[in-house]
Amino acid sequence: MGQKVIIVGGVAGGASAAARLRRMDEQAEIIMLERGPYISFANCGLPYYIGGTIEERSALLVQTPEGMRSRFNVDVRVENEAISIDKENKKMQIKDIKNNKVYEESYDVLILSPGSTPLKPPIPGIDSPNIFSLWNIPDVDRIKSFVDNVKPKSVAVIGGGFIGLEMAENLHDLGMEVNVVEMADQVMAPVDFEMAQIVHRHMKTKKVGLYLGDGVKSFEYHNGATKVTLQSGKSLEVDMVILSIGIRPQSELAKNAGLEINQRNGIVVDQFMQTSDSSIYAIGDAVEVTDFIGGGKTMIPLAGPANKQGRICADNVAGKKVPFKGSMGTSVAKVFDLTVSATGVNEKTLKRDGKVYGKDYYTVLVHPNSHAGYYPGALPMTLKVIFDMSGKVLGAQNVGYDGVEKRIDVIATAIRFNATVFDLTELELAYAPPYSSAKDPVNMAGFVGENILNGMEKPFQWHEFKDMNPSFVVLDVREPMEREMGYIPNSINIPVDQLRERMVELDKSKTYVVYCAVGIRGHAASRILVQSGFENIYNLIGGFTTYSTVLC
Amino acid sequence: MGQKVIIVGGVAGGASAAARLRRMDEQAEIIMLERGPYISFANCGLPYYIGGTIEERSALLVQTPEGMRSRFNVDVRVENEAISIDKENKKMQIKDIKNNKVYEESYDVLILSPGSTPLKPPIPGIDSPNIFSLWNIPDVDRIKSFVDNVKPKSVAVIGGGFIGLEMAENLHDLGMEVNVVEMADQVMAPVDFEMAQIVHRHMKTKKVGLYLGDGVKSFEYHNGATKVTLQSGKSLEVDMVILSIGIRPQSELAKNAGLEINQRNGIVVDQFMQTSDSSIYAIGDAVEVTDFIGGGKTMIPLAGPANKQGRICADNVAGKKVPFKGSMGTSVAKVFDLTVSATGVNEKTLKRDGKVYGKDYYTVLVHPNSHAGYYPGALPMTLKVIFDMSGKVLGAQNVGYDGVEKRIDVIATAIRFNATVFDLTELELAYAPPYSSAKDPVNMAGFVGENILNGMEKPFQWHEFKDMNPSFVVLDVREPMEREMGYIPNSINIPVDQLRERMVELDKSKTYVVYCAVGIRGHAASRILVQSGFENIYNLIGGFTTYSTVLC
Ligand SMILES: Cc1cc2nc3c(=O)[nH]c(=O)nc-3n(C[C@H](O)[C@H](O)[C@H](O)COP(=O)(O)OP(=O)(O)OC[C@H]3O[C@@H](n4cnc5c(N)ncnc54)[C@H](O)[C@@H]3O)c2cc1C
Ligand SMILES: Cc1cc2nc3c(=O)[nH]c(=O)nc-3n(C[C@H](O)[C@H](O)[C@H](O)COP(=O)(O)OP(=O)(O)OC[C@H]3O[C@@H](n4cnc5c(N)ncnc54)[C@H](O)[C@@H]3O)c2cc1C
Ligand SMILES: CC(C)(COP(=O)(O)OP(=O)(O)OC[C@H]1O[C@@H](n2cnc3c(N)ncnc32)[C@H](O)[C@@H]1OP(=O)(O)O)[C@@H](O)C(=O)NCCC(=O)NCCS
Ligand SMILES: CC(C)(COP(=O)(O)OP(=O)(O)OC[C@H]1O[C@@H](n2cnc3c(N)ncnc32)[C@H](O)[C@@H]1OP(=O)(O)O)[C@@H](O)C(=O)NCCC(=O)NCCS
Repeated sequence: MGQKVIIVGGVAGGASAAARLRRMDEQAEIIMLERGPYISFANCGLPYYIGGTIEERSALLVQTPEGMRSRFNVDVRVENEAISIDKENKKMQIKDIKNNKVYEESYDVLILSPGSTPLKPPIPGIDSPNIFSLWNIPDVDRIKSFVDNVKPKSVAVIGGGFIGLEMAENLHDLGMEVNVVEMADQVMAPVDFEMAQIVHRHMKTKKVGLYLGDGVKSFEYHNGATKVTLQSGKSLEVDMVILSIGIRPQSELAKNAGLEINQRNGIVVDQFMQTSDSSIYAIGDAVEVTDFIGGGKTMIPLAGPANKQGRICADNVAGKKVPFKGSMGTSVAKVFDLTVSATGVNEKTLKRDGKVYGKDYYTVLVHPNSHAGYYPGALPMTLKVIFDMSGKVLGAQNVGYDGVEKRIDVIATAIRFNATVFDLTELELAYAPPYSSAKDPVNMAGFVGENILNGMEKPFQWHEFKDMNPSFVVLDVREPMEREMGYIPNSINIPVDQLRERMVELDKSKTYVVYCAVGIRGHAASRILVQSGFENIYNLIGGFTTYSTVLC
Repeated sequence: MGQKVIIVGGVAGGASAAARLRRMDEQAEIIMLERGPYISFANCGLPYYIGGTIEERSALLVQTPEGMRSRFNVDVRVENEAISIDKENKKMQIKDIKNNKVYEESYDVLILSPGSTPLKPPIPGIDSPNIFSLWNIPDVDRIKSFVDNVKPKSVAVIGGGFIGLEMAENLHDLGMEVNVVEMADQVMAPVDFEMAQIVHRHMKTKKVGLYLGDGVKSFEYHNGATKVTLQSGKSLEVDMVILSIGIRPQSELAKNAGLEINQRNGIVVDQFMQTSDSSIYAIGDAVEVTDFIGGGKTMIPLAGPANKQGRICADNVAGKKVPFKGSMGTSVAKVFDLTVSATGVNEKTLKRDGKVYGKDYYTVLVHPNSHAGYYPGALPMTLKVIFDMSGKVLGAQNVGYDGVEKRIDVIATAIRFNATVFDLTELELAYAPPYSSAKDPVNMAGFVGENILNGMEKPFQWHEFKDMNPSFVVLDVREPMEREMGYIPNSINIPVDQLRERMVELDKSKTYVVYCAVGIRGHAASRILVQSGFENIYNLIGGFTTYSTVLC
């Protein structure tokens, strides 16, 4: 027999590590410990089983203990919890939960993939029988049986992260009246406020109650219903509560064993996924990783990185030296009819880190169609790209209906190679009318970025209106008809196509903020003005579309 | 007034150049010459207007001469043909077609974007009244009126390129009996044979008649119908013929002016899109470009490159120095329910250039789902990636139903940065169940490529069966039930999950070609065998899925 490897956790990271390790090393003894009753389940599919989109419970079980045994010769022990590690002697204590027995196992190598667990803060009433978290199969069984048997008519989802919103959508699919309560002023933390606003509006059209900037003060359960009282004093009465206010890494085992842990309780690992003890590796939600963009440390609790780390870790356990080069948090979620996707750093984070717009970084925001406008079914998207003053792409966000995550995947790939916005202009992407435009949205974002950096265009952002110099004149270059649907207060109107003749109506000594619907005509107009001797011309990035989404 | 710029051709390249040039240079005098009656039309949308998917003819006209005038102050002259260039004196002769007058214009800079034109070889009967090519608005009007008025019931599409197949689909949508005749042994030249086979099969399920490896000998028109006689002696009788057997660059004007032209009649330009005369630029279908992969010269008649070259050319005319770094031929087409997409070089081309599989390059072929299998609507794709012995990705092809061109766009982006298959394993792509899997198809192709290059797996390709050493044993590791749907002749069967126990039935001195449905279980099985002392184990790339698509 070869080396004895024990894996703690049998789902995304753990199962991937086990499968790859076996393919790398047929002789190793591989033991997989899983506290719960299931391994290799589809965490990410859980909300859709509750909503009925995934009909069969069995579809959630990607691999079974029996399958793992026969395919990969892994000694799978479900309902076996690792309770302590004696790293000096390479031994551990394990609790056989079913038989309520504790036993010991020695190891040559230990792989920790314990994942994370939903936060459950000590809010009064949080243990009421109709309050649920969703993390694993037993959770999903509980919620499903509650929904089927009790038939709740209303729900409060606490937390507007992707799991909360997936639950909101799925419970809405079941016909429930859905409310979402979120402490921040926006849902979907990976995207910035103006992007989240699109989601807020969409949710309102779905008649979802949205309580932003508000937290839960207490739950009061009475006779099947729970009264949720918010910090603001507002309250709602619902039949069911879903708690999804965040997660924390399950790193107690590692911590108690004396492994190095960071401030956020993440297990510290090097690029080979090795912890501070060279016989112990850790992967997945529970570890801290290198931020691919900034080079600092971060935590990215997502399945893609967990799976990849599992495979890399197995390679290293098998004697190779394969580094994990870091994560950039590429993500996507379906929120009702919308797709919300992001990669890299967002503007909020840059600001939190003290970076200044226009000094350290720029952003562009374009609203192109998902595919050629003349081919039916083209739907708008809102693509934001963030880049530093050298043009290096730092992050991107996209919200829309179709082809949304495609553009994020392209930009995530470009970021991996330290691409600039200039590179984005050159990408040769697949074009036919049902799929894209000859200038793909990613190219388009690149063009706008290039123009800003080359001084072809001075950008004006929606958030600059607040402190705008009162002498600035806002110039609407859309057609008069378009103004009937709304316009920026105090703006004057000269359609772009009349600008050359009517330029005399403007004053070269003044500063103009030009805008159109999305920015394209504003760009054309600003170029006309700048080249005609107007020195202070700004183009409103994202145009009236962004303005009205955020500020109206 | 600034410099006087004349643009020949007012569609993809020409119109893009005009628009950007105006944004760069408000003072320039810009004249646009277009032989046809329309500018800025959606060439790529034409087939869909005939099929009725695009309902309004006006949707095809992206920009009008009036619009171009008022927005960009361009002097648009439709039905004006450039007939000769006197490059020494920077003058040209122009024919005003409507008034049948020839006049002269001088220029400071000339931009040629004349595009290409469909080939019309001297086949007997080719001028029959029911034979059409499709290239511009007058063509589409002719075809549309024929279809509406004559109501043809059957059609022969000659040529199985993307325009031919788009026409096949659209005429099929109108209820016509459709036949496709193609000289090569496959349709869709950008992809390799095994990929095209998927398209052939799909077209057969749509009841399209497919005549491969056969050319047209003659057309005989009689009484509204045309008899198409093929080289093979076969013949078909149809009400209508669409000719789409290829195109040639419209470079006569350039050639007659003494500009440098390549062997394929492409206008020779440098990286700044400048011809052999420094006052004349050329862009679009008519020019030769650098092959981004191989570094040689090639011609890529597609709208994305034409648009980008138009923009870059305008920048250079306006005094910047912006290089066009080359094309890799990224493309996509909808063929009935299938999407066919490709980027970079294909295997056919490598072979034609004398490259040898296994010595100069490898290929992988995976059949992953478009998104997580447990979420409804997941559909298989066939993704082929070609890479050299250092791992550098040379090209990729993908055929399937959903998320197909997304993966090609990701790989095209990676290729732009000289990515290797090792890089593909690391890409952090957006994952949620409706969109992808935790290991995206692109990652998966990377894993398989990495395994081949690292010696973890010896690949066996479908085309190696033909000359396979007769002593090799083919080992099917699928379940017995799966064999009922077909298997490779003379293969023996041991399911992968029984392999460890039943290995004694095998002979370590023999060579085994292992296969399963797609390659995943074959990979697991081959790893078990190799690590148990079997030295000569191959895994069939693409598994029985590829085998049966190509060879059954
Ligand atoms: C509802 C939901 C939806 C999600 N959707 C997405 C999505 O769309 N996209 C995405 O990228 N990610 C998604 N995720 C996140 C993703 O599932 C996780 O990032 C991923 O599973 C992390 O892998 P892991 O191996 O670190 O942890 P897990 O997959 O959670 O596995 C950890 C396992 O370890 C076990 N364990 C912990 N401690 C011990 C111990 N001491 N002894 C024995 N066993 C132990 C746990 O019981 C658990 O089963 C979602 C998660 C949830 C819950
Ligand atoms: C039916 C069809 C479908 C297509 N689908 C796709 C697709 O899905 N994806 C894709 O990427 N590409 C597609 N293409 C190809 C794409 O349209 C071309 O690559 C692109 O239009 C080339 O741009 P260009 O400016 O070089 O030429 P064009 O756009 O063809 O413009 C050239 C213009 O120059 C004019 N001209 C030529 N000579 C003269 C002269 N001497 N004087 C005055 N005018 C002149 C012509 O009349 C013509 O209008 C398709 C083409 C067709 C016909
Ligand atoms: C219609 C046509 C003339 C438009 O050309 P265009 O003005 O260069 O292209 P667009 O309308 O897409 O606008 C792109 C410009 O708007 C800018 N832009 C786009 N979104 C913007 C935003 N939100 N804010 C600011 N600027 C924006 C881009 O930067 C670009 O300007 P730049 O080149 O100066 O950088 C040309 O595309 C055409 O003729 N198309 C039809 C023919 C064709 O291509 N056929 C083949 C395909 S079917
Ligand atoms: C089920 C599970 C154990 C499978 O792990 P796995 O065997 O590594 O993954 P796959 O079945 O996708 O197979 C991938 C392997 O097949 C190989 N492969 C894939 N297609 C192939 C082909 N056509 N030819 C040859 N090999 C192929 C890959 O190279 C890879 O092998 P490698 O790692 O040795 O390079 C694991 O993915 C799991 O537990 N998943 C569910 C839990 C989870 O991820 N949850 C979070 C998301 S919901």
